[in-house]
Amino acid sequence: MLNRDLKIKKSTPRQDVNMILDGLNERNRISLSRAITILESKSRKDQNDKQKILEWSYTQENKAYRIGITGSPGAGKSTLIESLGSELVLTEECDIAVLSIDPSSYMSKGSILGDKTRMQFLSQNPRVFIRPSPAHQMLGGVASATRETIMLCEAFGFKYIMVETVGVGQSEHMVHQMTDLFILVLLPGAGDSLQGIKRGIVEMADMILVNKSEGDRQLLAADTRRAYKNALRLMPQKDSEWITNVQLVSALNNIGIEDLRKSISEYFEHVQKANYLTTNRARQAEQWFQHSLVESLVEKLEEKSNYRELRKTYLEKVRSGNLAPGWASKKMIEQLFSEW
Amino acid sequence: MLNRDLKIKKSTPRQDVNMILDGLNERNRISLSRAITILESKSRKDQNDKQKILEWSYTQENKAYRIGITGSPGAGKSTLIESLGSELVLTEECDIAVLSIDPSSYMSKGSILGDKTRMQFLSQNPRVFIRPSPAHQMLGGVASATRETIMLCEAFGFKYIMVETVGVGQSEHMVHQMTDLFILVLLPGAGDSLQGIKRGIVEMADMILVNKSEGDRQLLAADTRRAYKNALRLMPQKDSEWITNVQLVSALNNIGIEDLRKSISEYFEHVQKANYLTTNRARQAEQWFQHSLVESLVEKLEEKSNYRELRKTYLEKVRSGNLAPGWASKKMIEQLFSEW
Repeated sequence: MLNRDLKIKKSTPRQDVNMILDGLNERNRISLSRAITILESKSRKDQNDKQKILEWSYTQENKAYRIGITGSPGAGKSTLIESLGSELVLTEECDIAVLSIDPSSYMSKGSILGDKTRMQFLSQNPRVFIRPSPAHQMLGGVASATRETIMLCEAFGFKYIMVETVGVGQSEHMVHQMTDLFILVLLPGAGDSLQGIKRGIVEMADMILVNKSEGDRQLLAADTRRAYKNALRLMPQKDSEWITNVQLVSALNNIGIEDLRKSISEYFEHVQKANYLTTNRARQAEQWFQHSLVESLVEKLEEKSNYRELRKTYLEKVRSGNLAPGWASKKMIEQLFSEW
Repeated sequence: MLNRDLKIKKSTPRQDVNMILDGLNERNRISLSRAITILESKSRKDQNDKQKILEWSYTQENKAYRIGITGSPGAGKSTLIESLGSELVLTEECDIAVLSIDPSSYMSKGSILGDKTRMQFLSQNPRVFIRPSPAHQMLGGVASATRETIMLCEAFGFKYIMVETVGVGQSEHMVHQMTDLFILVLLPGAGDSLQGIKRGIVEMADMILVNKSEGDRQLLAADTRRAYKNALRLMPQKDSEWITNVQLVSALNNIGIEDLRKSISEYFEHVQKANYLTTNRARQAEQWFQHSLVESLVEKLEEKSNYRELRKTYLEKVRSGNLAPGWASKKMIEQLFSEW
């Protein structure tokens, strides 16, 4: 898979960034893909082009809704995106983008083929743009590439941007921090088996879908719904003042999907009225800046000083219990700046 | 309050740190108090003494259990600590320390008087050491002072160190990150009113106590217990593999406190067998180091460069939507290092 990916990249000749920007202005999907490839690039030589693309993003009007979708493997996220996406495209006659964060996808199955097979309607619909995970990147890299891709897709004019994650490492938290609405997809019986859902995810969810509520599983699904509804009552109110709902759906049979679309539109009405959408995005941007500032700083220090080695030495001392962590950090910074 | 505190500090002549260390070796409580005051000091002139005290901590044997206790105001945390503390002291014949993190206490009531009044038995018992919040400090300062105070108290030889927090800002998360066992105290009816408990707290808890389960409230308390037990079934398993329990207590009438003590001792048996206690503390120390490293770094940069001003400028641009956060951080760091 790795070799093939490299081959694909190699065989695409690099376009001049101005041609890409022209293409973006004409809403050309191929240019969009190429622009995203630049946003995903870690290479130094792409940084100027990247900035130009980001600047372009900032000059466009921006009215998209960002929906994060998470759930354990097998919960049917792709099928749900297929049927929810189709419902949105057909009913609202809008364009949608589907992005995914799945650091493992290129290892297991190659996300492009995988996603497109699982999303047959969407992948053939011209109103839908599907972009698989940025492969061969660390999670940190995926995060910033995905955030910037979201911004670019918004600027491009998609009404809905769905970001799917399979929950490797911290990816659900990441997706939560870059979306407006966060949907958790569960299987019937989730209450018994827990399905590998990580801490905090239930509290982060704005909507919980019990998927595969079909046939024999309907009773179990109703139980699961009841259990989550009760559990949610014990959780603190969200900043958005939206009350998380639990819905039964069968993405495969397209059951409950119309209600889901209505619920999504109620959600966005609610958060816009509560002025939450804007304040939440401002908060997210600030968090992203803070986080990214520390990252950039450490990157620079590693390049310019012996930060990395010092960090290792002091961390050893902390781990072995020879130095109090708070004291270790002070001493390390003193040493770093005195040797510099 | 502020003036009185300053006066108290002024009127206590500063002891030489070597005298304090001698006192610590003799397990003198007054020396312990003085040592903690040094740990809480932000003043430059105290930094050498601080290091000596921390070094002393590291030379001692360390076998304490750290218990974090949180809950909304009015849930009866102090009464619970009073009765649990008495139970521990009397049954296990051990020494205990009670610390508190309450950034607001010095504003509202003055924590010393407040705590001691609410903990009549403990405050008169020579086996118990009560230390109120470090006042006049930012939360970050409280965190590192409290962590170091915990270490010092362990070195001093207390078997249990209870850290109480009232949940201002991020303080529960902080206390969770510095303790081995985390107890959440609720009132009957918590399921309906939510009591201002913040997101994630229920999932962090190793034990949930429904306090004031007495008189008329017993039925409601049983309901609350059932609701939380059900909700907990939906939450992911803890790294410690300990299953959070929900207990009814009446701290005031000393009901359920013996069971609580037994449960605490089961917990520590469990986590020691699972080797969780050690790995969790190592993880906590590493997190603390990471966190503190960034703090020290930013402190240094603010002192040595125009970091603070640059940060403000770029944050403005991010907030107003004129610059992508990830890009803003890169540009800011470039500028910082080029101007330096």
